[in-house]
Amino acid sequence: MEFDHIGVATTAAADLADLYADLLGTPVAHEETFEGMSVVFLELDTGYFELLEPRDDGAIARYLERNGAGIHHVALRTPDIDSSLERARELGVDLVDEEPRPGAWGHTVAFLHPKSTGGVLVEFVEH
Amino acid sequence: MEFDHIGVATTAAADLADLYADLLGTPVAHEETFEGMSVVFLELDTGYFELLEPRDDGAIARYLERNGAGIHHVALRTPDIDSSLERARELGVDLVDEEPRPGAWGHTVAFLHPKSTGGVLVEFVEH
Repeated sequence: MEFDHIGVATTAAADLADLYADLLGTPVAHEETFEGMSVVFLELDTGYFELLEPRDDGAIARYLERNGAGIHHVALRTPDIDSSLERARELGVDLVDEEPRPGAWGHTVAFLHPKSTGGVLVEFVEH
Repeated sequence: MEFDHIGVATTAAADLADLYADLLGTPVAHEETFEGMSVVFLELDTGYFELLEPRDDGAIARYLERNGAGIHHVALRTPDIDSSLERARELGVDLVDEEPRPGAWGHTVAFLHPKSTGGVLVEFVEH
């Protein structure tokens, strides 16, 4: 299992991307609008930051209202998301996504429920 | 700048380490008591999870009281922490640590203030 990205909830993805590019030397690798969010991926030498700015009143907007801006989730890259989900199921981990689904950047993703993983929202992602 | 680790605040580092080892295939790479915390590093194929369990009433204990368990910070590895901090200073980023200081596992660390970085607590770490 490899680090894939940190997901960050923000009200200003473009400004934060500019700051991170200057501060960390992380160029923009990909941008898109996905499920009512502006999504910007910034490239580290290993892995990415994923900046998530809501354009509607979906999950990230509600997260920002409750928690403010900041780290939202950690995504781990797996070569076989079905096996990784099955392993989680065997261990009794609660799943947000019972089945893998399309994520940003054309990847396949599934989220585990933070109540089962020490409060950490974990995303599995298969490229 | 490379991904180094995700710092997770927890009340049960040993149990969470066991779960993550089973769920993610992340073996324990290092354990120590550091600044009143039990610290466990779990090894991903790229980078680490750092589990932080308070043994006193320090910063992580206060974090847990306010926020509950979960992702506390993201650490980025730099080959030259002095230059990275200087860059942050030039950009007007508020620093938690004005100078690099000893961190867990014998590394040198410095934290940036989340109010300057979109709510994300960023740690620079030099191995």
